[in-house]
Amino acid sequence: MTKFEIPTEQWAQVVEKSGGPVVYKKIPVPKPGPDEVLVNVKFSGVCHTDLHAMMGDWPLATKMPLVGGHEGAGVVVAKGELVRDIEIGDHAGIKWINGTCLACTFCMQADEPLCPHALLSGYTVDGSFQQYAVAKAAHVARIPKECDLAAVAPVLCAGITVYKGLKESGARPGQTVAIVGAGGGLGSMAVQYARAMGLHVIGIDGGAEKGDSCRALGAGAYVDFTTSKDLVAEVKAASGDGLGPHAVLLLAVSEKPFQQATEYVRSRGIVVCIGMPANAYFRAPVFDTVVRMITIKGSYVGNRQDTQEAIDFFRRGLVKAPFKTVGLSELKDVYHLMEEGKIVGRYVVDTSR
Amino acid sequence: MTKFEIPTEQWAQVVEKSGGPVVYKKIPVPKPGPDEVLVNVKFSGVCHTDLHAMMGDWPLATKMPLVGGHEGAGVVVAKGELVRDIEIGDHAGIKWINGTCLACTFCMQADEPLCPHALLSGYTVDGSFQQYAVAKAAHVARIPKECDLAAVAPVLCAGITVYKGLKESGARPGQTVAIVGAGGGLGSMAVQYARAMGLHVIGIDGGAEKGDSCRALGAGAYVDFTTSKDLVAEVKAASGDGLGPHAVLLLAVSEKPFQQATEYVRSRGIVVCIGMPANAYFRAPVFDTVVRMITIKGSYVGNRQDTQEAIDFFRRGLVKAPFKTVGLSELKDVYHLMEEGKIVGRYVVDTSR
Amino acid sequence: MTKFEIPTEQWAQVVEKSGGPVVYKKIPVPKPGPDEVLVNVKFSGVCHTDLHAMMGDWPLATKMPLVGGHEGAGVVVAKGELVRDIEIGDHAGIKWINGTCLACTFCMQADEPLCPHALLSGYTVDGSFQQYAVAKAAHVARIPKECDLAAVAPVLCAGITVYKGLKESGARPGQTVAIVGAGGGLGSMAVQYARAMGLHVIGIDGGAEKGDSCRALGAGAYVDFTTSKDLVAEVKAASGDGLGPHAVLLLAVSEKPFQQATEYVRSRGIVVCIGMPANAYFRAPVFDTVVRMITIKGSYVGNRQDTQEAIDFFRRGLVKAPFKTVGLSELKDVYHLMEEGKIVGRYVVDTSR
Amino acid sequence: MTKFEIPTEQWAQVVEKSGGPVVYKKIPVPKPGPDEVLVNVKFSGVCHTDLHAMMGDWPLATKMPLVGGHEGAGVVVAKGELVRDIEIGDHAGIKWINGTCLACTFCMQADEPLCPHALLSGYTVDGSFQQYAVAKAAHVARIPKECDLAAVAPVLCAGITVYKGLKESGARPGQTVAIVGAGGGLGSMAVQYARAMGLHVIGIDGGAEKGDSCRALGAGAYVDFTTSKDLVAEVKAASGDGLGPHAVLLLAVSEKPFQQATEYVRSRGIVVCIGMPANAYFRAPVFDTVVRMITIKGSYVGNRQDTQEAIDFFRRGLVKAPFKTVGLSELKDVYHLMEEGKIVGRYVVDTSR
Repeated sequence: MTKFEIPTEQWAQVVEKSGGPVVYKKIPVPKPGPDEVLVNVKFSGVCHTDLHAMMGDWPLATKMPLVGGHEGAGVVVAKGELVRDIEIGDHAGIKWINGTCLACTFCMQADEPLCPHALLSGYTVDGSFQQYAVAKAAHVARIPKECDLAAVAPVLCAGITVYKGLKESGARPGQTVAIVGAGGGLGSMAVQYARAMGLHVIGIDGGAEKGDSCRALGAGAYVDFTTSKDLVAEVKAASGDGLGPHAVLLLAVSEKPFQQATEYVRSRGIVVCIGMPANAYFRAPVFDTVVRMITIKGSYVGNRQDTQEAIDFFRRGLVKAPFKTVGLSELKDVYHLMEEGKIVGRYVVDTSR
Repeated sequence: MTKFEIPTEQWAQVVEKSGGPVVYKKIPVPKPGPDEVLVNVKFSGVCHTDLHAMMGDWPLATKMPLVGGHEGAGVVVAKGELVRDIEIGDHAGIKWINGTCLACTFCMQADEPLCPHALLSGYTVDGSFQQYAVAKAAHVARIPKECDLAAVAPVLCAGITVYKGLKESGARPGQTVAIVGAGGGLGSMAVQYARAMGLHVIGIDGGAEKGDSCRALGAGAYVDFTTSKDLVAEVKAASGDGLGPHAVLLLAVSEKPFQQATEYVRSRGIVVCIGMPANAYFRAPVFDTVVRMITIKGSYVGNRQDTQEAIDFFRRGLVKAPFKTVGLSELKDVYHLMEEGKIVGRYVVDTSR
Repeated sequence: MTKFEIPTEQWAQVVEKSGGPVVYKKIPVPKPGPDEVLVNVKFSGVCHTDLHAMMGDWPLATKMPLVGGHEGAGVVVAKGELVRDIEIGDHAGIKWINGTCLACTFCMQADEPLCPHALLSGYTVDGSFQQYAVAKAAHVARIPKECDLAAVAPVLCAGITVYKGLKESGARPGQTVAIVGAGGGLGSMAVQYARAMGLHVIGIDGGAEKGDSCRALGAGAYVDFTTSKDLVAEVKAASGDGLGPHAVLLLAVSEKPFQQATEYVRSRGIVVCIGMPANAYFRAPVFDTVVRMITIKGSYVGNRQDTQEAIDFFRRGLVKAPFKTVGLSELKDVYHLMEEGKIVGRYVVDTSR
Repeated sequence: MTKFEIPTEQWAQVVEKSGGPVVYKKIPVPKPGPDEVLVNVKFSGVCHTDLHAMMGDWPLATKMPLVGGHEGAGVVVAKGELVRDIEIGDHAGIKWINGTCLACTFCMQADEPLCPHALLSGYTVDGSFQQYAVAKAAHVARIPKECDLAAVAPVLCAGITVYKGLKESGARPGQTVAIVGAGGGLGSMAVQYARAMGLHVIGIDGGAEKGDSCRALGAGAYVDFTTSKDLVAEVKAASGDGLGPHAVLLLAVSEKPFQQATEYVRSRGIVVCIGMPANAYFRAPVFDTVVRMITIKGSYVGNRQDTQEAIDFFRRGLVKAPFKTVGLSELKDVYHLMEEGKIVGRYVVDTSR
């Protein structure tokens, strides 16, 4: 077994008060508890949620001061006395769900994300924007050694989330799924997962460029809402038999796309909501929902098994996420780009610089 | 095989123009096609839908002139040349779905109610408010001879519909279902079906009398919305572990009960919508639906298998519907009571008078 | 609508007595009943079952004289008065299930193949080894016009059967399925379907040549039972995490492969039996089956929906079956090759010669 | 919070060498680890498995010396530092699965009983035939305070096991389940669970007395294999529509009952195997299993959620197990009765004497 030198101090990006900014500074390296591991984070993806956490945008309070980040990929360098199923030197991922009780009715049914005692990385506990992060051993993602740590980082949140949504849809191989927001960061991963799952994909987004990218990733059809004269009719037409897609993945739920989705989805079909704009509501006509037996379902992040499955698709080369790497010290700049809506694909920070 | 004398004329209640009224008159007895049966209707339940059909309340046009009725129980007295699985003398039920194509993708998957070619009894084809009605042999309900024909009539629509909703909820024996509108006609059957299915029932309705009736039929708890100070909290408290019911059956969907249901339903739970008030919409917060992974699902009428299952619960004495019998000739009076909101339980018309 | 000239006589291959042979002769063209279509068969695949039917190998009696064949692809040239959802000129397939009652409890639940009144093409009713064959309109496969009729013929039995087996396995995209007999006719289609459904495939068969063909069609691993020293260990090792495949498809059930399958399948996994050697039994240790919670399931042919789905995979170019075409008049020669075990891939007969 | 006095020594029944006997003696009270609780066992059911463990009957080795017992009901008197969701003073149950890793692929999917690292109470770790037993906090059954601790003990193994088998069968309320061995200890609980789950029960066992007891507990029909002339026909006849039960629960798997079960089960039905006679095999005809699409499934013990559900049925008074209470000191006598086959119902030992 390799032995790792663990320093007492490390570099981290710290939010010292709600509203930010992040401060790049040295802080102590934490110690893992008996059921925890210490992960030497090598790379961490940057997600919009990290910005929300810093700004205090959501009703749920964050810890403060806070180290953000929940897409951290690295190496296990220490572990508590009770940890048996993961070894020093293994590669592991820090994800949104940092730990749960493993004993409540939700945990007992493999719905750990619904655990009322869930610890959230980079939100209620310190996350992956530091060189050494602690997480519950039972919850860190197991990352096979053949996976590139920078490239796998965005899978740990974006990938798992869309994969989970596709699983929750219940769509079977050979069926059709429409992906709303298919050209964005989540969307481009969703298109690839859907295709690898044997689904026929209708991408929905705005602009010809996004259409090209959707098709290149495997979408069989693309509907452009900026030019479509009748989006509902076009999506139905693109579904092969004209009855509409069996499932719709809504990566950004706002009222109009939601209402449209309930119109073009096939009878007995399902609309899966993933995105969560602040204070948004959805609204649907009761009559149509009843007589067409439509299902609307919210899907949150994946559980531990979903995590391993999503990573396995990545490992087999079926899913790729375009990303740019910058130093952890430059996180503030990434947030600026994010605030200005200038990010295409995912930024990944390298904790060594 | 018994041979039945079939007259050439019969008594019927006929809607001659949209808006009504019904006219009690003699009309010819129809003849079954090659894949149809002729049912000598003995009793027929009266449903709110029949009134809507007469008044032309819904967007879908009815045939005209129209014989209404879709809860008809009687005896097969003639059948077409292709009909092999039902015999002259068998008891059969005319239900809302009179016939479907049996060949479209929905019919092929046992979702006949979603067939785009469905014939609707008492709506797009003549129904059961006559002494002799025609229906597709593959679709008439098979009624065991030990079932009383007057008592089983309301099962053919109300019973099947709530049973289907409970099946669609996916709630398992031992779990908890809240029934909104538990004290009404549909509700009282839903309480009984739920209990016979091993479910723990929370009845929700207004008034102490309805509470007594819910409890007498098997509800383990009752929440009165006319007196409750915090309905959401009370329903959650009544669910045993305080996490809320696993499923909610909404027998009358209007905005407030819908919104409440999404609040008190357990995380990962389901809200099944059955009632269909004209032009109603439902509305739910996206954030909560996503992070609690809530499902909202519309449930329409049952398919043929659901029909036989719902009848079998009745046959075994597990479900009863209170009803009053009047003559078919008095249908107009029943509609008057219905318009005045004065009906408790179900009216069943006897076609012999 | 195209009008077709329908002759009164046609060429057919007729089995005149149990044990054969087939006699190539002219017989009358049948007329469709009110719920039937007449299909001008262009091509028909030849299946081992056809030989069994001629030889009277199975306990269930055939009609006699008999026209065999149950993989017939052609054009609808006439239809009965009740047929509404298929048009003259449409392409259609005659499959093993020629018709069912559509009203029994199995038909009502989309399990038509289990209907006790099922008519079997080329067995209890005349099949597709003739130029004009009759079938129930609700049951003929709908073949899209872009599909080559010779190439699609083998999908109508072999394709549907393996696709159904894969569906019944419940294996999800990303999981692993082992296919026993992967190098044979059924097996090569199973490998392709499995891959198109997002499954990781372990082919199991004998010989290096079959291994090459399995890998070429998409199997990620191949285990050769003629050279393997420990087949159970090798299959487990090929499953990625070493726990064994999630599902096993047994295309030829005999005792040894069955017993092995129960050993290498993952705990909670499933062994799906498809092949049916005469008088075979399977045998498994109770203890292991219980503590590892293994499922064993028989899978017969697909229902109508499965049929359409299996054809759709073919239409999208995801599945191909290698075949040779000969004249219908040469059927006897094909049977000779079959008896001698000399057939690789599928023979398809052209009814025009 | 109540504080409990914990002695340093306690009474226990200890197996000192394989083959027994049990020795009633004083041993040290164990101390819980950081993720464990110490349960003051009040009552413990005695199961055949305990005898097998003492005798070394099974291939898997036990720890030695060994304290047996895996149906222990008592009070939590101490807990480790990581235990948050259970309090000192809570009632808890020691069950067969004492602890698992909670991190392998089986644990992650709520199949803890399949965990390769599972600790087994009274087998690989000391069990409940002592006054103070240790178990993993995440795994002890949570017992509501209104449950009698002696009466609930047999639910912790027998109850959970049959409840799990019924869940695994997938039988829905209103369907029919045949229970083979319905008159025995497991069987009588299975009949009650099945009935509470809305199932129609056919009891199968030998003798009129067992028939009376089955009917008294809720079986709708009883078939006596000691007097039946055609058991297969009788079971089918008892299933209502004559097609056979939807599911069969085999509480004692031996070859003949197994073969019969595959004959009388309905097409598309399932045979669930629970009992595990040493070295038994099952054997079934391939042809029938395939064309009737029959499923055979092994079911082991329940997971943690199943445990809580099974206990909740007990709490609501829906299930009762007849038992006799003797002192822990008398365990040897219970084993003698067991060896002589003289036990009817369950023995429960009281650890205070």
